[in-house]
Amino acid sequence: MDFLAEEKNKYAAPAGLATKYRQEEVHRFIVDCMTSVATPTPQARALADLLVAADLRGHFTHGLNRLGKYGKSDVCVRVCVYYLIRHLHQTVYSVFTISLYPITGSNHYGIAGWYAMSASKQGLLGMSFTNTSSLVVPTRGKQALLGTNPISLAAPGEKGDDFVLDMATSVVSGGKVEVACVKGEGVPAGWALDRDGAPTTDAERALDGFLLPLGGDETHSGYKGFGLGMMVEIFCGILTGAPYGSNIRDWTRTDRPADLSQCFVAIDPSFFAPGFEGRMTDLMNHCRNMEPETQQKPVLVAGDPERLHMRKVEQEGGITYHINQINNLWKLAKYLGVTPLHS
Amino acid sequence: MDFLAEEKNKYAAPAGLATKYRQEEVHRFIVDCMTSVATPTPQARALADLLVAADLRGHFTHGLNRLGKYGKSDVCVRVCVYYLIRHLHQTVYSVFTISLYPITGSNHYGIAGWYAMSASKQGLLGMSFTNTSSLVVPTRGKQALLGTNPISLAAPGEKGDDFVLDMATSVVSGGKVEVACVKGEGVPAGWALDRDGAPTTDAERALDGFLLPLGGDETHSGYKGFGLGMMVEIFCGILTGAPYGSNIRDWTRTDRPADLSQCFVAIDPSFFAPGFEGRMTDLMNHCRNMEPETQQKPVLVAGDPERLHMRKVEQEGGITYHINQINNLWKLAKYLGVTPLHS
Repeated sequence: MDFLAEEKNKYAAPAGLATKYRQEEVHRFIVDCMTSVATPTPQARALADLLVAADLRGHFTHGLNRLGKYGKSDVCVRVCVYYLIRHLHQTVYSVFTISLYPITGSNHYGIAGWYAMSASKQGLLGMSFTNTSSLVVPTRGKQALLGTNPISLAAPGEKGDDFVLDMATSVVSGGKVEVACVKGEGVPAGWALDRDGAPTTDAERALDGFLLPLGGDETHSGYKGFGLGMMVEIFCGILTGAPYGSNIRDWTRTDRPADLSQCFVAIDPSFFAPGFEGRMTDLMNHCRNMEPETQQKPVLVAGDPERLHMRKVEQEGGITYHINQINNLWKLAKYLGVTPLHS
Repeated sequence: MDFLAEEKNKYAAPAGLATKYRQEEVHRFIVDCMTSVATPTPQARALADLLVAADLRGHFTHGLNRLGKYGKSDVCVRVCVYYLIRHLHQTVYSVFTISLYPITGSNHYGIAGWYAMSASKQGLLGMSFTNTSSLVVPTRGKQALLGTNPISLAAPGEKGDDFVLDMATSVVSGGKVEVACVKGEGVPAGWALDRDGAPTTDAERALDGFLLPLGGDETHSGYKGFGLGMMVEIFCGILTGAPYGSNIRDWTRTDRPADLSQCFVAIDPSFFAPGFEGRMTDLMNHCRNMEPETQQKPVLVAGDPERLHMRKVEQEGGITYHINQINNLWKLAKYLGVTPLHS
């Protein structure tokens, strides 16, 4: 959903806009857009850091693409990313051995991995959880109860290597169904149910329906994925006393605050045994060096697909977006009165 | 694998042994067996508590069945359950707000949920993780790297209600494949690979092969399940500096100690917001009251299948075992010189 679609579409994007942009330029554009709607500069910069990081890592659904998707009011004041980051550094990440820090009154917080990585870059184990609007059906059910409630864990390896698990507790995130829709493709069996709770491979019906929890059907232990989604909700809405489960507003509504909850954990591994980073890298390299089933598809560790994408961006000298997105952002720039992206 | 098979099979069990036994009698039998091999009584009792709890909850692979499966040396001295429980109560569960307590030099610790529930019974959020011998193949791989590395989270609801997630991070535990083998049935596609890393639905080949991580294949995000297995290993072997991944001994070998690592977490929810138990029960009841896809199969919350099994045991006045297991335990009793189970 694009909340600004109607207003932006008064403008027509010129033909032939470039699709590749340097990350600094993308950052500049986000800051300009945000400050143009009265967001203080530190918050605008913090949000730009977060969104650019998502695009660099190849998670385009959580990057620049989000700018048009935040509601008008959200864009202005409710994006609390800056506060999140400031609080995290002041409290959670100045840990003794372990800190747990849940927050309420939040909104879509971007990629969960961002916060976990903020800790791992300081040599800590970092975890991050968020509840989200209902989209995932419990095993045996027909309607959604929980959101895609992601879990992230980042752990430092040697020489900048790291493990970054950043996963929705559903089989796939809503973004993957959206992409299949845009491409006019179907979705694999076992991803989604339609609005009536029946399994579907039609992307449009899936987008209008619900997602299955990680594992899929009962035979393949989908209840474990749902249990993990519950775990995230316990650490977020249940622990804090904020909205949880189906009490969370539908994400297409902007008549009341999102009021999402998030939870952050930081653990200092040096307290337990020296050499954590070495063991971490050893285990990751062991995994990467295993014989793959198909030679062209090496075994990867959580965080490796994102690392490969960052290398690609570096080699190509910029982040490449879909032309539809660029046209859309050009219209947003005109609507907000800021300089469009330039290559 | 039954390490005592050869010695026990010198004895022939009489025909017509009962299969239903009161839980107190099962407890007595375990204590007698353990003390007969020089286990101090407090440890023997702690182990009996744990194994009986598994059977009561319907997790027969982790209950009385384990007695014959621990190696001879394991049965005598290496079961550290008693120490675990004592330490947990002294350290982790006397929390301020959050405690994390990893241990090394351990062995098979029974059901992961036992330790999490020890905390939830005191009004705390409890978590428990253990690494195990390699059995699970990373996505795109052909050989095992991690064990079934379970995650447990227990959270208290109102009036004794609770949420108990206790899940292997593989699609299913090895026990389910074993059961299919015993019954002469196949296993569903998406559970296992054979010894050569090829998908199989043959239970014998699966038992001789490997398990897939939760999610299954790459299209259904099996790498998330593998990532969760890595998370468990990070909290266990990597954090502590003990064996991890494929460095852990094969579970069929008893020529060196198991040296497994486990990690326990306790969190006091009252620190964050009052009314945790009420919200927990509200969310669980909301889930249970959802319209099911099939009327005969209500939507359940993690811990409900176990609760139903405990109710069944109570109604029937005892725990019902398979006759093969009872015959086997009769032989074990004769071998150890203790009184066999009597109904």
